[in-house]
Amino acid sequence: MKVYLDNNATTPLLPEVKQEIIESLEIFGNASSKHSFGQRSREKVENSRKIIADYLNADPKEIIFTSGASEGNNLVLKGVSSCGTTCSALSCKPHIITTVIEHPSIANTARCIEGLGGDITYLKVGKDGRIDLEELKEKIRENTVLISVMWANNEIGTIQPIKDIIAIAKEKGIKVHTDAVQVFGKMPIDVKELGVDFLTFSGHKFNALKGTGGLYMRCANHICPLIHGGHQEGMLRAGTENSLGIISMGKALEINLQQKDSKRIAALRDDLEDFILKNIPNTYVNGSREHRLYNTTNISFEFIEGESLLLMLDHFGIAVSTGSACSSDSLEASPVLTALGVKEELAHSSVRFSLGPLNTQEEIDFVKEKLKFTVERLRAMSPLYNSSEM
Amino acid sequence: MKVYLDNNATTPLLPEVKQEIIESLEIFGNASSKHSFGQRSREKVENSRKIIADYLNADPKEIIFTSGASEGNNLVLKGVSSCGTTCSALSCKPHIITTVIEHPSIANTARCIEGLGGDITYLKVGKDGRIDLEELKEKIRENTVLISVMWANNEIGTIQPIKDIIAIAKEKGIKVHTDAVQVFGKMPIDVKELGVDFLTFSGHKFNALKGTGGLYMRCANHICPLIHGGHQEGMLRAGTENSLGIISMGKALEINLQQKDSKRIAALRDDLEDFILKNIPNTYVNGSREHRLYNTTNISFEFIEGESLLLMLDHFGIAVSTGSACSSDSLEASPVLTALGVKEELAHSSVRFSLGPLNTQEEIDFVKEKLKFTVERLRAMSPLYNSSEM
Repeated sequence: MKVYLDNNATTPLLPEVKQEIIESLEIFGNASSKHSFGQRSREKVENSRKIIADYLNADPKEIIFTSGASEGNNLVLKGVSSCGTTCSALSCKPHIITTVIEHPSIANTARCIEGLGGDITYLKVGKDGRIDLEELKEKIRENTVLISVMWANNEIGTIQPIKDIIAIAKEKGIKVHTDAVQVFGKMPIDVKELGVDFLTFSGHKFNALKGTGGLYMRCANHICPLIHGGHQEGMLRAGTENSLGIISMGKALEINLQQKDSKRIAALRDDLEDFILKNIPNTYVNGSREHRLYNTTNISFEFIEGESLLLMLDHFGIAVSTGSACSSDSLEASPVLTALGVKEELAHSSVRFSLGPLNTQEEIDFVKEKLKFTVERLRAMSPLYNSSEM
Repeated sequence: MKVYLDNNATTPLLPEVKQEIIESLEIFGNASSKHSFGQRSREKVENSRKIIADYLNADPKEIIFTSGASEGNNLVLKGVSSCGTTCSALSCKPHIITTVIEHPSIANTARCIEGLGGDITYLKVGKDGRIDLEELKEKIRENTVLISVMWANNEIGTIQPIKDIIAIAKEKGIKVHTDAVQVFGKMPIDVKELGVDFLTFSGHKFNALKGTGGLYMRCANHICPLIHGGHQEGMLRAGTENSLGIISMGKALEINLQQKDSKRIAALRDDLEDFILKNIPNTYVNGSREHRLYNTTNISFEFIEGESLLLMLDHFGIAVSTGSACSSDSLEASPVLTALGVKEELAHSSVRFSLGPLNTQEEIDFVKEKLKFTVERLRAMSPLYNSSEM
């Protein structure tokens, strides 16, 4: 049996999306070409844009397709930092507020902007992984141009109080961006009701293809492009449209299994989590259990290395992860867990289980059995565990 | 019959590439994940990297995957302009030499760099579409950091004297970039022999998927990333790898029909071109016929609008173009043709035919017939043509 519980890293294609991709392999025209081959691609691209806009309660003109969320996050942070409609970088000294638990595509872009002379404030998070709204209010300055807070964290699933954040920002006339990669397709989103200015999403996190994603940008906003060139995407993102990727996003969102399926997925996640906490001693859930994505649990298995657990589970065909795939080469403890105040040793012993619409109860039962066995085996070999038992 | 003669805008997938894509839809892991799902993707991505590196006579480490050539071109021009390994934009005042006939992703990026305080020199081209090497030598300055010249032009197919350009640059220790989008996969490329520093390519121009491409960057070079974030692509290009796109590029290059097929494609192009010049009066080939891609011809059909010809041919199922798909929204005459000294009226009357490995003699015969008929019909309605006849 193969059990894939790493849906926050990437997701398998839904069967219907696979079918749509296969059928669309014939549609190859350049969406910017004026002949029928091109126009057929254009129709498909615009159809997906409409599906996505409808899901967000946005206007199709407000959707900018990108190669994924890393590009989208860079586009927003760098594009807003240029302080206007021209491309004169950092023509004023921008101040951006973000958090200490953002995805590397926000964290490292923020560092780049600091290198260029911009100011960044990194909000702390509590043990539950959530920011303090009072701290946010205090950190706002005259030259604050953007507040960028991820809606739900990829590693621990913690959901931020995004509505409250936007309310605070609006009072001061500050734009808000949210990296909604882990929320998009999983929960309903109404950008008008929310009042958010920028929102990024990524196709491969909701059962569509990799290499495609997008940015919602509220009409009234301006931004400097990251990729200059052709007239595509309202002159905001040059390059021939990834029509197949865009088609796959439209289809995945249309089916939107995850959303309809959210209660079932939540029950599977809860079942797994409850089993672990009850049957495997010295295990701790990281981050808020209340304000959390329904598909995610991040658990520390004291006395063992998360990495060893990952590799042993892999032998049984079970895929889990130890933090963000985007920093999987790093030997350091997860900066997200460290930010929660999790001690380094416990952070190293943590594993993320992230479920998706294709997971079944049978799979979860299989994981429970193999997990208990594996943790016991690893602990039996662990000098730390054995000394703690004495 | 459907005849697609717009291969410089984008290409259909080769049947073998289609098959490979369908088989690879199961391989969905994040190439950065450590479990088997991820490692299977990683192997496929690295296999494609090796195929591409072998084709270029490069080291796999020198290949950076991007979302396409627009991104690649932005990455090089902006990345080099940052004048070093840090991200302090334009820390010295860089001077870049390019040409007046580059793709919009170079031309508009150059304009962005000018806006940031950089200096750009745009080399003129002759009637044949080629730069003057003496002018290049004269324009080199103390602070020239890069010479960026497209290898073959997308609209007219003209091939630049890239070896001579590199020889001149090397004497002065200046880096050279070439936008090789229209050459990659069509002709053999040996980057070591060539001595080029940066070379961009795009998957969908050689019968692979859209939304994927890459950059060859010689090992000794440094560049500032355009997309910050995860550790992917040697920290030079963040974002989950577009594994399916990358797989499609490897397969397309492996088959490389275009290259094996080049003589046949050239013969088809010549047959079409000869027919037009002999049987349709007042027609002129734009750009060099000697130094030219074997699949391209750009022809002015005096007295008629290229746009009208495109649309009428489209009714017969024949796809051609009037200039770059990336500027197809523009009403202005092609800047490339204008740069050659082609008069505005003639520029507006020009059409590009660009062939590919899937075209047949039967298709070309069909095009010849419909083209002659259509041009005659359009001219019969043209007041310009009728007054010239008097």
